[in-house]
Amino acid sequence: MAEAGTIRIVEVGPRDGLQNEASVLSVEDRVHLIRLLFRAGLSEVEAGAFVSPKAVPQMQGSAEVLRAFSDQERRNLSVLVPNQRGLEDALAAGAGSLSVFTAVSDSFALKNIGMSVEDSLGLFESLVRQARDRAIPVRGYLSCVAGCPFEGTVDLRRVVSLSSQLLEMGCFEVSLGDTIGVGTPVYVKKMLRALQQEVPLDKIALHCHNTYGQALANVYVGLEEGIHVFDSAVAGLGGCPFAPGASGNLATEDLLYMLGDLGGCPDLSMTALLDAADFITKKLGKEPQSAYFRATR
Amino acid sequence: MAEAGTIRIVEVGPRDGLQNEASVLSVEDRVHLIRLLFRAGLSEVEAGAFVSPKAVPQMQGSAEVLRAFSDQERRNLSVLVPNQRGLEDALAAGAGSLSVFTAVSDSFALKNIGMSVEDSLGLFESLVRQARDRAIPVRGYLSCVAGCPFEGTVDLRRVVSLSSQLLEMGCFEVSLGDTIGVGTPVYVKKMLRALQQEVPLDKIALHCHNTYGQALANVYVGLEEGIHVFDSAVAGLGGCPFAPGASGNLATEDLLYMLGDLGGCPDLSMTALLDAADFITKKLGKEPQSAYFRATR
Repeated sequence: MAEAGTIRIVEVGPRDGLQNEASVLSVEDRVHLIRLLFRAGLSEVEAGAFVSPKAVPQMQGSAEVLRAFSDQERRNLSVLVPNQRGLEDALAAGAGSLSVFTAVSDSFALKNIGMSVEDSLGLFESLVRQARDRAIPVRGYLSCVAGCPFEGTVDLRRVVSLSSQLLEMGCFEVSLGDTIGVGTPVYVKKMLRALQQEVPLDKIALHCHNTYGQALANVYVGLEEGIHVFDSAVAGLGGCPFAPGASGNLATEDLLYMLGDLGGCPDLSMTALLDAADFITKKLGKEPQSAYFRATR
Repeated sequence: MAEAGTIRIVEVGPRDGLQNEASVLSVEDRVHLIRLLFRAGLSEVEAGAFVSPKAVPQMQGSAEVLRAFSDQERRNLSVLVPNQRGLEDALAAGAGSLSVFTAVSDSFALKNIGMSVEDSLGLFESLVRQARDRAIPVRGYLSCVAGCPFEGTVDLRRVVSLSSQLLEMGCFEVSLGDTIGVGTPVYVKKMLRALQQEVPLDKIALHCHNTYGQALANVYVGLEEGIHVFDSAVAGLGGCPFAPGASGNLATEDLLYMLGDLGGCPDLSMTALLDAADFITKKLGKEPQSAYFRATR
């Protein structure tokens, strides 16, 4: 399905993962986690978010996290920016790459970023333009693509048109997030077939949560349909804020195990990944949500 | 992929699941579990094994388990028989359906059933003939199809020829067990493509363990390749004797959630399944290994 060297794994543990954990970790611990992820060979790591420390204490000090790395290392790190202030702070801290975050549903966008989807697109247009003026790439996150915790099912046409708009405004890629993990392979296939009518699938990443155990099966269908970029979090960091006790992001270890049998899989060290999973889950005082980890350590 | 009503789920929790749990449950609890599984709509349930109570204390009293059900109910129950004595006891207890169990690798067969694979086939030939004389269907289990804990990788040609032999001796179906959960979608696809050269895939079931998180992705590939029968265990009962802490069988709840979006999925009650998962895991004093359960209860 995929050709040699074509699959990319985007590690979202230090941001999307940690942001949804109850514990607040120090800058030092987050920097160490990122160093361990680099050591495993990951070359695209979400490092933090320039959001309100009151709203999201887990991400406070993201500027310090960035500053702990060299210019060259920062090219492998991305941070989330929700507004003009976040953009300026992120650029001042030397962010190598940025991301913006919206949702398919207004209810989710209002709860998470405090504005409607339409308003968020208006804002992002300005943020993306400023970043591109400085040659900083911006990734678009589109969440709730398989369902919304407040609105239930979502309209596939909205997934298509919002993906299109994010790409048109200059995002280099759109990551489609099944934020609450309700998607099944049947749904993902239907979504990608609808999408490819209007959007080149080589600009689309899948961000699957494992809330209902479907993440790897969904990735597999994604591969079959032509997707080559997958988001995952070491140790399955993240949980689901709408389902206490549920698992969160797809674990990078389990993804790597599945992809390892395919041509095109990135050359990562499973041992180093497990070390990173071990480190971060001990810091959080929780069990790794990775089947591979539990089977082998 | 599958047509309406064509997918079958074989519930293996009360046998393959409980047999690999540390706790030994009473006959009464096991009967209650099976009643809850019937209530969920499952119509093929592995109820016990006529094996040595010294070697497998979890299965002692399997005759009493069978006798707790009516003749008609027993038609929906199968039990594992390893030898002539087991066959006779199972038939005397009114078993509606039997299964025999061997492996791709001799090391695994020797450890688990105390004989080589070849010797097991010789024995099964006699058991299957006797069962068929009484119009009792026999299912063949072939374990370690994706790897052996003692021998490592297995020869696909052996999977093919052993499946063939089990069918030729009169098993109505062969369930291919990835006993240690090491298979990936790439492997499963390769295995099924090799198999279909010599064996009709409508006689093949997949029995995926979730040790490395691959089970649902493997089921999905199975569906694509033409498999319609899948084994699973409520609450993911079972563990892996070779990896303490690892998850065991694919959880029936997670399988049902994925299949629910397909045509052909059996009409089961998720609520009743979750009740069964809740009951049995409380009895065992462990957490359900089902993502669906953890996300919703």
